[in-house]
Amino acid sequence: MPFDPLWQSLEEIGRASAGGYRRFAWTPEDAALREWFTAQATDRGLAVEPDRAGNLWAWWGDPDDALRHGRPGVAVGSHLDSVPDGGAFDGPLGVVSAFAALDLLQGRGFRPARPVAVACFGDEEGARFGVACAGSRVLTGVLTADRALALTDADGVTLADALTRAGQDPAGWGPDPVALGRISCLVELHVEQGRGLVDLGRPLGLGSRIWPHGRWRFDLHGRADHAGTTRLVDRRDPMLTLAVVVQRIRALAERHAVLATCGKVRVEPNGVNAIPSRVTGWLDCRGDDPEAVRTLVAELGAEVAELGGELCEESWTPPTPFDPGLTARLARVLDDPPVLPTGAGHDSGILAQAGIPTAMIFVRNPTGVSHAPDERAEPDDCRTGVAALADVLAELAGT
Amino acid sequence: MPFDPLWQSLEEIGRASAGGYRRFAWTPEDAALREWFTAQATDRGLAVEPDRAGNLWAWWGDPDDALRHGRPGVAVGSHLDSVPDGGAFDGPLGVVSAFAALDLLQGRGFRPARPVAVACFGDEEGARFGVACAGSRVLTGVLTADRALALTDADGVTLADALTRAGQDPAGWGPDPVALGRISCLVELHVEQGRGLVDLGRPLGLGSRIWPHGRWRFDLHGRADHAGTTRLVDRRDPMLTLAVVVQRIRALAERHAVLATCGKVRVEPNGVNAIPSRVTGWLDCRGDDPEAVRTLVAELGAEVAELGGELCEESWTPPTPFDPGLTARLARVLDDPPVLPTGAGHDSGILAQAGIPTAMIFVRNPTGVSHAPDERAEPDDCRTGVAALADVLAELAGT
Repeated sequence: MPFDPLWQSLEEIGRASAGGYRRFAWTPEDAALREWFTAQATDRGLAVEPDRAGNLWAWWGDPDDALRHGRPGVAVGSHLDSVPDGGAFDGPLGVVSAFAALDLLQGRGFRPARPVAVACFGDEEGARFGVACAGSRVLTGVLTADRALALTDADGVTLADALTRAGQDPAGWGPDPVALGRISCLVELHVEQGRGLVDLGRPLGLGSRIWPHGRWRFDLHGRADHAGTTRLVDRRDPMLTLAVVVQRIRALAERHAVLATCGKVRVEPNGVNAIPSRVTGWLDCRGDDPEAVRTLVAELGAEVAELGGELCEESWTPPTPFDPGLTARLARVLDDPPVLPTGAGHDSGILAQAGIPTAMIFVRNPTGVSHAPDERAEPDDCRTGVAALADVLAELAGT
Repeated sequence: MPFDPLWQSLEEIGRASAGGYRRFAWTPEDAALREWFTAQATDRGLAVEPDRAGNLWAWWGDPDDALRHGRPGVAVGSHLDSVPDGGAFDGPLGVVSAFAALDLLQGRGFRPARPVAVACFGDEEGARFGVACAGSRVLTGVLTADRALALTDADGVTLADALTRAGQDPAGWGPDPVALGRISCLVELHVEQGRGLVDLGRPLGLGSRIWPHGRWRFDLHGRADHAGTTRLVDRRDPMLTLAVVVQRIRALAERHAVLATCGKVRVEPNGVNAIPSRVTGWLDCRGDDPEAVRTLVAELGAEVAELGGELCEESWTPPTPFDPGLTARLARVLDDPPVLPTGAGHDSGILAQAGIPTAMIFVRNPTGVSHAPDERAEPDDCRTGVAALADVLAELAGT
């Protein structure tokens, strides 16, 4: 099937009224996406193999038989879930393009020498349970099943309970070296999440590395009191501290030439007539230079401490290079597209950290916007991406 | 019954683990408080009459018979609900002191010439449905039943549904001139919510007036985008705008000598790795001079507009004087305690606006803190308050 009708078959699932998507892990929308994936695989004669971490693998060819003959498979794919009110392309473009590339190859009569998998990673965005790339992290073992299953959503539902309600068996959750062992490499096609390609006037690019990135929480303390009766001089109002910290985050980001953002806050008790007792904020910080990121966090931590608060690390991912040999092979097949670093985390980064050779293909995004309804990829560029992925598969899974 | 055991009989209802109270309208905790009130009234031979707005009136004497003889009753009381993690005294001190004052009078063999009501107003804090003094506002008609019943809590439950679940009939909701017509005046005893009395070294005070006060919402617009890939120069981040507005609120409050607070914010989508699309904040502003409050709001509104946002009024209550004649009578009985204005809204203010002569007695608060677990009144001062209320009732309901 060509790209366009395949893309349209996915468009209505999890679409929110405002035009964005709400496709969160282990919800009814997620189940509909998994059904769509399974139906697409079945239509093409692919066998769907779930792994022990909620990821789906649709195999063209028998991976275990090929493995016995020393020919592990080639994986392409991405994820189908979204951030709250996210765009249509982040994730789904990679999955849809993978199926469309297989259709191209099958239409050409291509017979793979190695089996090919279309991968659909579970819970990449972490929108519901707070940990990004949860599916690939459990798969590779960097996130233990115990920790993962105890994660809770905003309603206090644990991942374990959500899995049970979704018809999964959390007792079977854990790292899956057998599933990982079936693949020799992974190529993830993804919409670009910035303006690198549009500024260069090029439809496709390759990923060089994922920037080091992390999340930190800061707690700012105050004294709860009545907003209508407490004199200004008697107040200890942490909302004022938040204002200072938000501005310091931006100033330090400019000074150290990194990206730093406070996109989430929690105010207690969050009442109109109550001076807050506590404000909690989260810092997202990333940059090409891990030292610059570390310096920003250290300086901000010292300033938060001077203001009577605490800053603590919630996660840290070191710089992740994609496989240079694999990326060079893709560059040859694709006539040397630009090679760009990315500030966004991806399942391909998690697999790269686990020692799987991985590469990324980026598709131009005319708005440069991501994680929002304005996220875009032009149909021509999408078709160019599908053709590129087919050529890459012919190279990697061919003779 | 003396004050102390009566106070203790109420202490466990709705107490949260952190030491504060969560007593919200039409919850099981609220039902337990209403049962407590009814049991106290019954023990004293008082007849409990609910009105059409969820307030309870426990009558000593027959108000309708007295009304036919031209002797409308005298009401004392307050409310039993709380803000989230509120203190023990705001509200309950007035209800408990009213029962204890009746016990004192009955112990002295006092026979009232006018009937006396202990009033328990419903949903004073507006913690669940967002409108403060909802019970007295519906009672007097300034809040229509239609608007009140359509209010929703954080889970989307309407007041109408909450009432039905609590065994009430929302169809009967509305203003109740019959219930209001039974009283000639209301005296509300309340813990002070600031440091006025403690700075003067006095256990009791009287209220002169309630400051003008209001709530405004401001919406700050941004462009949702990926925190890990969007260059700083390409961002439109409303969290940075919030920081500016929070600081301007404080600076304008100092300049105009009023109280102004941003205690509540809502961030969309509130994700760690998402630049927000919108931040909404709420301004609470009050002061003795309505012109100063109005000027602050106008100046802040202009600044918010310059920042691309909008500020709109959610509520406004003009200055509310308590009844000068009634307050002068209380001053004589109580040997001229200090007379103080208050920044907090009260049901007695709503009844004053409806033309009922009202007065307030404040009890010293050693911490000055209110709407928080540190809210306090010393046992000696509470007993002094009870004795004062008994003397006031002897004056107002006596021959």
